[in-house]
Amino acid sequence: MDAGRQCYDLLVIGGGSGGLACAKEAAQLGKKVAVLDYVEPSPRGTRWGLGGTCVNVGCIPKKLMHQAALLGGMIRDAPHYGWRVAQAPHDWATMADAVQNHVKSLNWGHRVQLQDRKVKYLNVKASFVDAHTVCGVSKGGEETLLSAEHIVIATGGRPRYPTHIEGALEYGITSDDLFWLKESPGKTLVVGASYVALECAGFLTGLGLDTTVMIRSVPLRAFDQQMASLVTEHMAGHGTRVLRGCAPERVEKLPGQQLRVTWVDLASDRKDAGTFDTVLWAIGRVPETASLNLEKAGVRTNPVTGKILVDAQEATSIRHIYAIGDVAETVGRQHFPLLWEVSPQSQAGVCGDTGLCHLCSWAGRLEQGPPRNAVPSRLSSAWRAEPAGRPELTPTAIMAGRLLAQRLSGRTSDLMDYSSVPTTVFTPLEYGCVGLSEEAAVARHGEEHVEVYHAFYKPLEFTVPQRDASQCYIKMVCLREPPQLVLGLHFLGPNAGEVTQGFALGIKCGASFQQVIRTVGIHPTCAEEVAKLRISKRSGLDPTVTGC
Amino acid sequence: MDAGRQCYDLLVIGGGSGGLACAKEAAQLGKKVAVLDYVEPSPRGTRWGLGGTCVNVGCIPKKLMHQAALLGGMIRDAPHYGWRVAQAPHDWATMADAVQNHVKSLNWGHRVQLQDRKVKYLNVKASFVDAHTVCGVSKGGEETLLSAEHIVIATGGRPRYPTHIEGALEYGITSDDLFWLKESPGKTLVVGASYVALECAGFLTGLGLDTTVMIRSVPLRAFDQQMASLVTEHMAGHGTRVLRGCAPERVEKLPGQQLRVTWVDLASDRKDAGTFDTVLWAIGRVPETASLNLEKAGVRTNPVTGKILVDAQEATSIRHIYAIGDVAETVGRQHFPLLWEVSPQSQAGVCGDTGLCHLCSWAGRLEQGPPRNAVPSRLSSAWRAEPAGRPELTPTAIMAGRLLAQRLSGRTSDLMDYSSVPTTVFTPLEYGCVGLSEEAAVARHGEEHVEVYHAFYKPLEFTVPQRDASQCYIKMVCLREPPQLVLGLHFLGPNAGEVTQGFALGIKCGASFQQVIRTVGIHPTCAEEVAKLRISKRSGLDPTVTGC
Repeated sequence: MDAGRQCYDLLVIGGGSGGLACAKEAAQLGKKVAVLDYVEPSPRGTRWGLGGTCVNVGCIPKKLMHQAALLGGMIRDAPHYGWRVAQAPHDWATMADAVQNHVKSLNWGHRVQLQDRKVKYLNVKASFVDAHTVCGVSKGGEETLLSAEHIVIATGGRPRYPTHIEGALEYGITSDDLFWLKESPGKTLVVGASYVALECAGFLTGLGLDTTVMIRSVPLRAFDQQMASLVTEHMAGHGTRVLRGCAPERVEKLPGQQLRVTWVDLASDRKDAGTFDTVLWAIGRVPETASLNLEKAGVRTNPVTGKILVDAQEATSIRHIYAIGDVAETVGRQHFPLLWEVSPQSQAGVCGDTGLCHLCSWAGRLEQGPPRNAVPSRLSSAWRAEPAGRPELTPTAIMAGRLLAQRLSGRTSDLMDYSSVPTTVFTPLEYGCVGLSEEAAVARHGEEHVEVYHAFYKPLEFTVPQRDASQCYIKMVCLREPPQLVLGLHFLGPNAGEVTQGFALGIKCGASFQQVIRTVGIHPTCAEEVAKLRISKRSGLDPTVTGC
Repeated sequence: MDAGRQCYDLLVIGGGSGGLACAKEAAQLGKKVAVLDYVEPSPRGTRWGLGGTCVNVGCIPKKLMHQAALLGGMIRDAPHYGWRVAQAPHDWATMADAVQNHVKSLNWGHRVQLQDRKVKYLNVKASFVDAHTVCGVSKGGEETLLSAEHIVIATGGRPRYPTHIEGALEYGITSDDLFWLKESPGKTLVVGASYVALECAGFLTGLGLDTTVMIRSVPLRAFDQQMASLVTEHMAGHGTRVLRGCAPERVEKLPGQQLRVTWVDLASDRKDAGTFDTVLWAIGRVPETASLNLEKAGVRTNPVTGKILVDAQEATSIRHIYAIGDVAETVGRQHFPLLWEVSPQSQAGVCGDTGLCHLCSWAGRLEQGPPRNAVPSRLSSAWRAEPAGRPELTPTAIMAGRLLAQRLSGRTSDLMDYSSVPTTVFTPLEYGCVGLSEEAAVARHGEEHVEVYHAFYKPLEFTVPQRDASQCYIKMVCLREPPQLVLGLHFLGPNAGEVTQGFALGIKCGASFQQVIRTVGIHPTCAEEVAKLRISKRSGLDPTVTGC
């Protein structure tokens, strides 16, 4: 068997954002590299090509469908700007075909890039035989044994199904399927409060579909909660039905192919039901480790989250095996509370970390065990991706992968910096943020040491079509002591991703509020409103911006 | 006469961006303030309300008409994204009415703001009687005498007419008129190479009008010239007819109301002619000082540019009289070459500054007098608004006005920092920049000390409708020595203003290239392409970005 064994300098398991970046960088630095990628079809049978979640069932199709939805709003704006255009219906099939074709071109592009860089690509399912050997099984069942000096696990995650709910697996879909639907999902129930849930519900609404989002407790839990409220408020005001404090209990198929969903209102304990064409679960993601046989290699995972534990070098418990991207979590540096729901509105938790968690130390909430009034029947474990933690994001995985390859090649000793990673939620009104939420800043520094500047503003482009700008809002969280170091920026409005990126550089460079307000604005933009922030929450003054 | 004299702490002449900001700030700091504003109708009789150029005939209507034009492109994109929408004609009157109504609401808003802050507003034409007395004449001819402890001149500028061209004043219009037209300008010739010229030509083209822009020599002279070329290349590729190296000689009215323009191709000296509905002059702006009687107050101006000379405190040659915004220029700190055209492609110049110009010292080009082969008949004087100089921009005037008011009130001694002011040209493909152009960086630091990173990129939203992204390009100009301080950023693409603002903060905070590339991107955005810059011009590698 050893005669047929393939040997590499670096073996990367998983051809997503992190794995491909790591493989390509290592190959460019002269290493002999192989990438093992295999897409397990979703329970509904959806499959896709090379590139991982981002390319196939994440960022890329999501942003394109978001753009399609935004165009619906532009068509409504257009007559106010003089275009003699009639309101138009949307055809899902045309959009889906275009999006899927683009994704396929990216799949192809990734294969070409690997080839160009002399990275061996194997479309096999990988599992450990021992700490030094990986077995790859092809679709046809053919086995290949591989070994390498270094092994990087970058298998990412997949959407979680609420398997305890009757009919959930049988009749529901996830984001793994949504982006590959050939026909419109029709009237859709999106279950979840994550950014995935809100983004999907947002673009489905924007495409003209009757869309409901069902939120058990808190939307966008890991984000600034004032901003999260404004995001859902905007969605509710623009056509998405938002059911708060509700939990689904059963999904049944009706004779006419429609789905009947029964749910409970957690506050009143009253049951309710509705009929939908599609039920989309967006309740979180689980790391993709099941088939890896990690125990054979001796790679440790967190029993609560299932993630592979790594140190700041991205090394696992086994010296020569590393993990990056969504499948990995840093030992003892993260806040991952085990949550007990005390009531739908209130939760208490105990940090899963063994006393080393920064956030808990700051917040002074090193709780021990579940609170007394917790409801054990609704016991839930949740991974909390703190903005200051290790965010599950494509650019993070890419940078971590690249830096790992550089370290393995002896090019650098630089570690990935997971702090102040900017991100954007592509809801109909986009929410971009970087750094600490107001809550996290207060927890870390104390309310008396935090100054929050904020403003409501009206994008110029909203004036002519008289668009509602009630939720266009910016806040900047700073230390109170001069020169008022900026801890976090939160921007809700059009093009939030484009706006936030540059400010992330500013914050990386240690920007202070004094520097922000001395930066000259670019007129007329929404981004200039950040430089125009003057009113602190503490002052109690009206944060509504008026005039030019 | 002195009995009727009104006395103030601060008298502001000009109710534009700078003047209003200065007046409001001073009033809030407890000063007794009056603003004198009077709009001299354009030669075509266009008049408008309070707020100055930006609100009435600049940024605001420009950006809204730009947005209208962008919506045309969105409507073309929409069917690719599944919207069953037909191509639509554009109705100028509807757009103009909406834009003009918005401007009028801003005029009103400014009056209310002045009232709220107890600033006296006088709709009078101001002129100096002596250094301490200003005479305001109302539309009806009524005179008011005013005096104040401090006087701020903020009268801005107005478009320049090429009065030496036959028919120019009689038949042409400027941007002062364009935004107030009730009916479509129809087939339009835009003469000029300024950002005003390109922006107007861009949105007219986008609204479906047959548009020609006639450029005498170099477009966007004060900007990075590679970027300027890409801007015009994009326009030429998207429907704007660009006539390079041509100069108009005569405008005549034809019997059917159309205009016949005769021009000369400067390289071949051949004449040509065309017929247009509208001729728009966008060849520069002149400071609005003619009726101020500055000589009675003893306020010095630059004889070449006509601007009021001020020091770093914004103080004029008369101690208690200040000038801010477009009407002012800083003594001995600016590069303002007097240009002699040697040929249409080549120009030589002598700096109008008396030997103190930074740029000329850096560039080692302290020329003396016109070059020998200059063509005196085409002698032209031009103000060069260097990005590193004192840009004629609304937010600059506002910040300068505010700081001046704070200094006059003893609240601060902070001076306005005119360096690294970001700006954006709202051409169909927007161009945002901050800091030095490549040329200026090389001139200042020497080519061997400058590293330029660059990339072509394709906005994700362009893929589905297969939009041409040939000119989507970013370059970052850095010092070559590690950590490679960022000197300038140039971004060509959608939402360039939104993208550039945050990076301006980064550059203000002393960002280095090392910090830029360690800033995690926001995926998928165009702004993340800045953080992904890796290829230097010096390397000679292909700057075309591929893949995700």
